[in-house]
Amino acid sequence: MPNQIEVCIIGAGASGITAAKTLNQHGIGFHCFEKGSQVGGNWRYNNDNGLSSAYRSLHINTNRDVMAYSDYPMPRNYPMFPHHSQIIRYFDDYVDHFGVREHITFRTAVDEVSRNSDGSYQVRTNTGLEQTYKHVIVANGHHWNPRYPDPPFPGEFTGEVIHSHDYKEPAQITGKDLLIVGIGNSAVDIACEAARLHGGKVVISTRSGAYILPNWLMSLPFDSLANPLTAKLPMPLQRMLLSVSLWLARGRQEAYGVPKPTRPLLAEHPTISQDLLNLCGRGLIRFKPNIAGLSDREVVFDDGSHESFDMIIYATGYKVSFPFFKNGFFNVEQTNDLQLYQRVVHPDFPGLYFLGLVQPLGAIMPLAELQARWIAKLITGECRLPDRDTMLASIQAEAARNKRRYKQSARHTLQVDFFPYKQSLEQAMRK
Amino acid sequence: MPNQIEVCIIGAGASGITAAKTLNQHGIGFHCFEKGSQVGGNWRYNNDNGLSSAYRSLHINTNRDVMAYSDYPMPRNYPMFPHHSQIIRYFDDYVDHFGVREHITFRTAVDEVSRNSDGSYQVRTNTGLEQTYKHVIVANGHHWNPRYPDPPFPGEFTGEVIHSHDYKEPAQITGKDLLIVGIGNSAVDIACEAARLHGGKVVISTRSGAYILPNWLMSLPFDSLANPLTAKLPMPLQRMLLSVSLWLARGRQEAYGVPKPTRPLLAEHPTISQDLLNLCGRGLIRFKPNIAGLSDREVVFDDGSHESFDMIIYATGYKVSFPFFKNGFFNVEQTNDLQLYQRVVHPDFPGLYFLGLVQPLGAIMPLAELQARWIAKLITGECRLPDRDTMLASIQAEAARNKRRYKQSARHTLQVDFFPYKQSLEQAMRK
Repeated sequence: MPNQIEVCIIGAGASGITAAKTLNQHGIGFHCFEKGSQVGGNWRYNNDNGLSSAYRSLHINTNRDVMAYSDYPMPRNYPMFPHHSQIIRYFDDYVDHFGVREHITFRTAVDEVSRNSDGSYQVRTNTGLEQTYKHVIVANGHHWNPRYPDPPFPGEFTGEVIHSHDYKEPAQITGKDLLIVGIGNSAVDIACEAARLHGGKVVISTRSGAYILPNWLMSLPFDSLANPLTAKLPMPLQRMLLSVSLWLARGRQEAYGVPKPTRPLLAEHPTISQDLLNLCGRGLIRFKPNIAGLSDREVVFDDGSHESFDMIIYATGYKVSFPFFKNGFFNVEQTNDLQLYQRVVHPDFPGLYFLGLVQPLGAIMPLAELQARWIAKLITGECRLPDRDTMLASIQAEAARNKRRYKQSARHTLQVDFFPYKQSLEQAMRK
Repeated sequence: MPNQIEVCIIGAGASGITAAKTLNQHGIGFHCFEKGSQVGGNWRYNNDNGLSSAYRSLHINTNRDVMAYSDYPMPRNYPMFPHHSQIIRYFDDYVDHFGVREHITFRTAVDEVSRNSDGSYQVRTNTGLEQTYKHVIVANGHHWNPRYPDPPFPGEFTGEVIHSHDYKEPAQITGKDLLIVGIGNSAVDIACEAARLHGGKVVISTRSGAYILPNWLMSLPFDSLANPLTAKLPMPLQRMLLSVSLWLARGRQEAYGVPKPTRPLLAEHPTISQDLLNLCGRGLIRFKPNIAGLSDREVVFDDGSHESFDMIIYATGYKVSFPFFKNGFFNVEQTNDLQLYQRVVHPDFPGLYFLGLVQPLGAIMPLAELQARWIAKLITGECRLPDRDTMLASIQAEAARNKRRYKQSARHTLQVDFFPYKQSLEQAMRK
């Protein structure tokens, strides 16, 4: 390989492809390695990279205009909330339109990234390539390595056990008595899909519940109501406005049989579903508290009740995970807690960037695009990072803000507020 | 058979069983003939009487409290909108609780009802029973004899053609490109079920559209908002209140891609769906105008566009039909237009009563129960009918009211406003 290539991008999912496109536009040479044979990562159903968590019925729950990259709108004939097959077509078109497909090396996984004594990075692939790069952009995604309850629930369940990551299509669950652990978006999507099969019972076990927001409020996509102006309002006022809108749109979720969380609205990532309340009101999905123990097919819950099931689906989220960092690097799997400046730059490892490692209430793609633009400017020298101490102070301040704002859990370490985060990146880009 | 039995009830569906129960309570001897081997009629999925239009996923779209009989509430652990299997269990319990099962003759269809010269009725069954009754209560239902577009659309479609009556489960439609004709409750339920299969395309063809109401408004079952008080408000005010509630709950239906009817709200039977707007917003259901012609697999629409389909489902409603009235009686199949006093009594045929032949925005069961109570009182002589001229005048006045209120079509001849109709029955019962 020509040695003027100084940047390596790991992964060609939604984040990797916008990084490739951005570096290309800045005239920066790069290699982009993708384990599978196609772009799109998590959004490609049955991706042959073996990592996608998409299920057959998956639709994106942020609207088409919010999730599109800034300079490439979704086709006007797309529905407001497209199917994964439409999202993947959009990614394919994006890659072709900006001519970056030929810059991606497919069927090539990065096996190891190590740091040389001069601060450069040594990258080795499963195809035997080995190369030194000044910069590595990690875009391997954060929705592929299943997280299970830790410590595990006491006892042993002898029925089937899968993680939501493994759920693909109704045939896997048809006719089964199903316990779904968790109340995030995958948990609720799978529960609703199961309920409509009218086969076995469908029960959701949740420790703390979640606020269920619809896709639509008053025929507007829910996420189009968030904007730079409302994001500037004080949090109590934001809560009140959202609260009133929800009440007008669907009243109280308890009335349908969905437990109300004890924490206030927006203190955690909400669950978006246009379907859950209705299906609870039809008696097709029931709720149970946390699991106290397992025994054969029987599950005992924290309220002392017990029921038998054929299958447990752990919809308990994902670990942030970088298997190619063998040693000398951090391990964040237990906490998901990565101490990054602007969620992108590791202050101890110059030249190492993380892309798309954020969880907004909104879409990751436009944020990843902005991060990529910033990284490109850092690489070309158009922008400069502050010194290490300033970065550390900023990381600490951000962690404190996050702690006040969200329930503390592995899930919320990646949480960002879309517009404030976007602004902060734009500010960083002016430095 | 003992000849003190003077009443014959035809059918043991939701209307027939409440008639049997009511006559029983009034000490009136009767025979109740049911073609199938069980009670519940249309609500029994795969009823062996061969007449049920229920599909596997069917839930009732009026709420549990609104549809229950007045003296037998639904179990408190029932969901707000129960599944057909729960409705049927409720009917079975009702019949057992009031001890009327043993008064029903199962597996016995009425083949012919004719009128004797003395005004009594001769009833012959398919099991060879023949008996004279003074009174016949017709409770054979009005959702079993499929109505197709008449005249049929020009040309011939060579794909599969079924009526919504024949739709039972997803296996019938999986993977097929589907055209559904009509936008009533069955049309929309089937379209939504098809859309969630993520197989072939799903298109609804509708001449005039319909207002889509949700099951829930502000966590209250939609139909619990209708009550004797709101029913007394002038129609323009009722329209305005409903219109505002709908706007708050879901905005404009056109925004999701569902055409808006040209007629005002409440001028026709609305379609209830918690699902249609969402699935249109996901691009899974599309709309087309009326069919202009058919040719092979191709369907041409009124707007000149054409598309090919594997299957057409006519969800075009049902004919009111009494196959046992051979001659000397009326034929209403073409118009559904039965000229009945209080929707129950035929002024030319004393002793002949029709039960449940109404289509309220709400549930038929409590109205059928009230009709049965009135009939019982007419039979015992507690109540009296006015003379024939008064009945005819009342029928004409009601027809004129209906004509002002509703779009004129076969569908709306059975339409009643729940509370005004209930009141009018209660009034009749005081005479």
